[in-house]
Amino acid sequence: YYMFGLHAVKAAIENPCRKKHELWISKNARTKIFSDLTLPSIPIFSLDKSKNLPISENKVHQGAILKVSPLKQPSNIHEISKKKQPKLVVVLDKVSDPQNVGAIIRTFNFFGGKNLIITKDHSSEINGSLAKSASGALENINIIRVPNLSMALKNLRKKGFIIIGLDENSDVFLHKIKDYRNEKKVIVMGSEGKGLRRLTRENCDFLVSIANNNDSDFNTLNVSVSSALALYEFMGSENN
Amino acid sequence: YYMFGLHAVKAAIENPCRKKHELWISKNARTKIFSDLTLPSIPIFSLDKSKNLPISENKVHQGAILKVSPLKQPSNIHEISKKKQPKLVVVLDKVSDPQNVGAIIRTFNFFGGKNLIITKDHSSEINGSLAKSASGALENINIIRVPNLSMALKNLRKKGFIIIGLDENSDVFLHKIKDYRNEKKVIVMGSEGKGLRRLTRENCDFLVSIANNNDSDFNTLNVSVSSALALYEFMGSENN
Repeated sequence: YYMFGLHAVKAAIENPCRKKHELWISKNARTKIFSDLTLPSIPIFSLDKSKNLPISENKVHQGAILKVSPLKQPSNIHEISKKKQPKLVVVLDKVSDPQNVGAIIRTFNFFGGKNLIITKDHSSEINGSLAKSASGALENINIIRVPNLSMALKNLRKKGFIIIGLDENSDVFLHKIKDYRNEKKVIVMGSEGKGLRRLTRENCDFLVSIANNNDSDFNTLNVSVSSALALYEFMGSENN
Repeated sequence: YYMFGLHAVKAAIENPCRKKHELWISKNARTKIFSDLTLPSIPIFSLDKSKNLPISENKVHQGAILKVSPLKQPSNIHEISKKKQPKLVVVLDKVSDPQNVGAIIRTFNFFGGKNLIITKDHSSEINGSLAKSASGALENINIIRVPNLSMALKNLRKKGFIIIGLDENSDVFLHKIKDYRNEKKVIVMGSEGKGLRRLTRENCDFLVSIANNNDSDFNTLNVSVSSALALYEFMGSENN
C-alpha cells in the first residue's frame, strides 16, 4: 500500500524491517526533512513534477509518498504473551475508522505499548490513512488480527491478564481503578456508537466508563480519546 | 457555512439559537435519526436524488447537510469572566486543523467545559469539518476569538485564573498537578509541531508536559489527545 505524510514515510524509511518499493518526494520535503536520512535504494520520483500521483489528490501527502509492503506481524496471541513485553495489551473490537485506529496506535506507542489486537473482520485496514494518523508509530507496534475475539480474550485471561472493557453504561469510573497498576492488563475498546459486542462484554473481568460532567444529548467521546484516557490512567505514570 | 454529519446537524436543529437556512437529508437519515425531531421551517431537499451537493463529494455527510449561520459568540473575555461558569477555560494558540479543534470542543463539552479562546489569526475557521468533528458539541461551547493572546492571558490572570501551558519540554508532569483542582484555571495548548509561541509561554504561570514511556523518535501526541488528557486530569473527576 501507499504511505503518505512526512512522519509516516520517515519512520518507514528508518525501519529496517519495512520493505519499501517506490518513493515520491518533493524538493521541499527532501531538503527539510529527509536531508539527514539515507534514502533507500529504490526508484525515487519527484513529487513536484509528477502529475500522475499514485494516490488520490484528496490525501494530504505533505510531499512524501512511499509504496510499502505490510510489516510481518505476530500470527497469534501466543507469540505476544510469551515475550517479556509491556504489561498492557489494547484490543479493538471492530473499530473500522483508519484515522481512529491510527490515532490509538500513536498514543499507545507514546505510552510505551507494543501489542494491539484487532478483529479479523470489520476492523480498519492497515493502510496509508491509518499510517498517517499514527504519525510514524505504526513501525513500532505489533498488530495481531484474531478471527475469534472471545477466544482470544479467554486465552489471555488464562495467561494471567485482567480483561477490562470500556463501556459507557458502566457505573465504575476509570479513574477509580488504581488497584491493578502492576498487573498484566488488557483494555478492550468498542467502535463508536456501537460499543462492545455482547460476547466481548461478557468476556471482560470488569467494565469501566469515563465520568462526564454534562447531561446534554451530545456528550460522547471519540474512541481515540477514550482510549487515550484509559492508556493515560493505566500506563501514563508508570515511570514517574 | 454548511454543516454535515448526523450528530452535528441534529444538534444544530435542536439548538434554538442556531439560524438554519436549508436542509439536505437522505430518506435513511430522516427515518432513522430525525424521526423524533421537529424539522425547521426551511427549504428541505432530498439527498437521495440530489446530484448537485452543496459540499464537496469527499465530505462524509452521512445523509445530512444543513446550511447555517455562525452562532453569536461572546465578543471578548470580559463577558466570560463575569459569568458564573465552569472553572476551566481552554485556550488554543494557533491550532489550525479543524478536525483537531472540533475534537477538542467535543471532549471539552463532555467534561462540562464552556469557554474556549482561540487566536484571531491562524486558527481554524469555524466550519463544517470542525462541526462534524465536534459531533454536536459545537452548539454548547462559547468560542471567543482574541486578536492579542498575551493580553487576554494577562487579563485572565488579573481576574484570578491560573494559567497553565502544555509544553513538551517542561519537566513538570501533568499528573503531578493536583493542587489546583479547585482553582479557576486556563489551559493553553499550542499547535502540533510548533507548540506554544514564546510570548504565550511567558504568560503562563507554569508549564507542564505529559510523561511518555518511549524514547523513540516517533513519540508525540496529537493535540486533541494532549488536550483530552489535560481536561481529564483537571475536570474529569470533579463530580466523583
